[in-house]
Amino acid sequence: MGEFELIRRFFSGAPARRARLGIGDDCALLADVPAGECLAVSTDLLVAGRHFFPDVDPESLGWKSLAVNLSDLAAMGATPIGFTLALALPALDERWLAGFSAGLLALAARHDCELVGGDTTRGPLTVGITVFGHVPPAQALRRDRGLPGDDLWVSGPLGAAAFAVAERLDGRPLPDGHPARVRLERPGPRLRLGRALLGRAHAAIDLSDGLWGDLAHLCARSGTGARVDWTAVPVSPSLAGLPPARRRALALAGGDDYELLFSAPPEARAAIAALAGDGAAPTRIGSLVDAPGIRLIDGDGATIDTDELRAFDHFR
Amino acid sequence: MGEFELIRRFFSGAPARRARLGIGDDCALLADVPAGECLAVSTDLLVAGRHFFPDVDPESLGWKSLAVNLSDLAAMGATPIGFTLALALPALDERWLAGFSAGLLALAARHDCELVGGDTTRGPLTVGITVFGHVPPAQALRRDRGLPGDDLWVSGPLGAAAFAVAERLDGRPLPDGHPARVRLERPGPRLRLGRALLGRAHAAIDLSDGLWGDLAHLCARSGTGARVDWTAVPVSPSLAGLPPARRRALALAGGDDYELLFSAPPEARAAIAALAGDGAAPTRIGSLVDAPGIRLIDGDGATIDTDELRAFDHFR
Repeated sequence: MGEFELIRRFFSGAPARRARLGIGDDCALLADVPAGECLAVSTDLLVAGRHFFPDVDPESLGWKSLAVNLSDLAAMGATPIGFTLALALPALDERWLAGFSAGLLALAARHDCELVGGDTTRGPLTVGITVFGHVPPAQALRRDRGLPGDDLWVSGPLGAAAFAVAERLDGRPLPDGHPARVRLERPGPRLRLGRALLGRAHAAIDLSDGLWGDLAHLCARSGTGARVDWTAVPVSPSLAGLPPARRRALALAGGDDYELLFSAPPEARAAIAALAGDGAAPTRIGSLVDAPGIRLIDGDGATIDTDELRAFDHFR
Repeated sequence: MGEFELIRRFFSGAPARRARLGIGDDCALLADVPAGECLAVSTDLLVAGRHFFPDVDPESLGWKSLAVNLSDLAAMGATPIGFTLALALPALDERWLAGFSAGLLALAARHDCELVGGDTTRGPLTVGITVFGHVPPAQALRRDRGLPGDDLWVSGPLGAAAFAVAERLDGRPLPDGHPARVRLERPGPRLRLGRALLGRAHAAIDLSDGLWGDLAHLCARSGTGARVDWTAVPVSPSLAGLPPARRRALALAGGDDYELLFSAPPEARAAIAALAGDGAAPTRIGSLVDAPGIRLIDGDGATIDTDELRAFDHFR
């Protein structure tokens, strides 16, 4: 089986539905951006040993590779159109490819996001996806639109994915099917919630690197500070029983949750709370403030030291 | 310097011009597809040691990484809008990054193709680019639009890039600045020619894997055969003096030329010949025919054996 047969067999079963021209030409042709809307584009590169364990189940890897990209669309309030796949593989392993493709295309079908093109080559296991969606530009959930006085929300419980990684690194891998492993390996992009936030939320970002770091990005771009009430932060039940400092580190600085962090005016509270469902559970955790800096507050109003919370940086 | 500083310093000097929203958010927002046109999308993944020599000059690598993607737009007749960059680096080497970024952005500026977003991570040296353009869909130069009786054209001389690779692999690296090395390292995407072929040519493909293999793709998709006149094929002057069989193998089966191969009705001959310039020199090399199979014909009309000409396949 060669490169062209590989593409035909695992990645181009169905004819193009949304694309005018799908896999198999120099370019894909897309015509799905409604009048008055913008094309939204995001790209992520996942490298074995850095973004996933090299022995990860290929079906989970296929799912997650697309999920992290769809999460970027969700964080913009965009609706998916399609994606391209760039795949480097150390060897042509048909079982691996069948699993990867099944996981990838299952999530794609769930969100009506079509695989329109790609590139495959031999090389160290690497998955690059670029995803396209559409969004009305004036309402897009940009990072720089937060305002002092906005409520801060997260779309669901935090820390489970980082807990699954930590347990594996500590030599205590969680069993298949453990809820924390499912969160790590099959995150559910918050697309429905993102779209529902158009016209309601001001700013949003998805939590890939950990709440503390991603909140710092949102604040830096919006020119605000923030105050987060630790007692309000939804912490994953998988973290129950851990020492308090470790729970906090996993929930606030652990990455890979792929929930949304967003800011919205207080008058939108009831409407946003009503958006729970489909895996999302919007929870108010604090507010944006005029003064620079991000403070973590305990139940008694005291400031909690956050020196131990640093965003994940691939080059640090 | 961390990931975010790296992006700021090397890849986001200028504010977004064409993009509504450029680097630094969850998605880029683009609104540049004219009414009635389609978005054209292509993606390529370049892996060190497979698509380029690991010690390649980083400025050349930056240039070429974008050039091979722009060449896909050219082969569709599309006009560039922008691109995303996914970059895995074994280490954070500022000199390397400065060179890579300079080469990349120089070619981007030349074709008004804006870097709108990306992802950087540590990992084996890998460059993934996804490029966006626009094209009127009814005129797009698809691979499957060739007709029996069409003339076959290439946009310029073939074989120089493969010659530079072969000399290096044989322990005789060509010096810096040798025309064949320039062809290998700084290919010029035929964007102007591609656009000018809209409404004139029927089908097109860019020559990344070698004429013989890429012609087979075009014929398979168009449901035709082809007849190529070897004496008409423009062979790079760098190949002068090589044994005839080797010249033929490099010119017809060598990859990396990034010229266009296209088919057009005979009545377009004069118009197409007049499109020479800006690096492109359209040359008629044969025709598409009804009968399946691709034949190579010598000056006396005899068929030349082409068993030695096989397309490059990354998994063979």
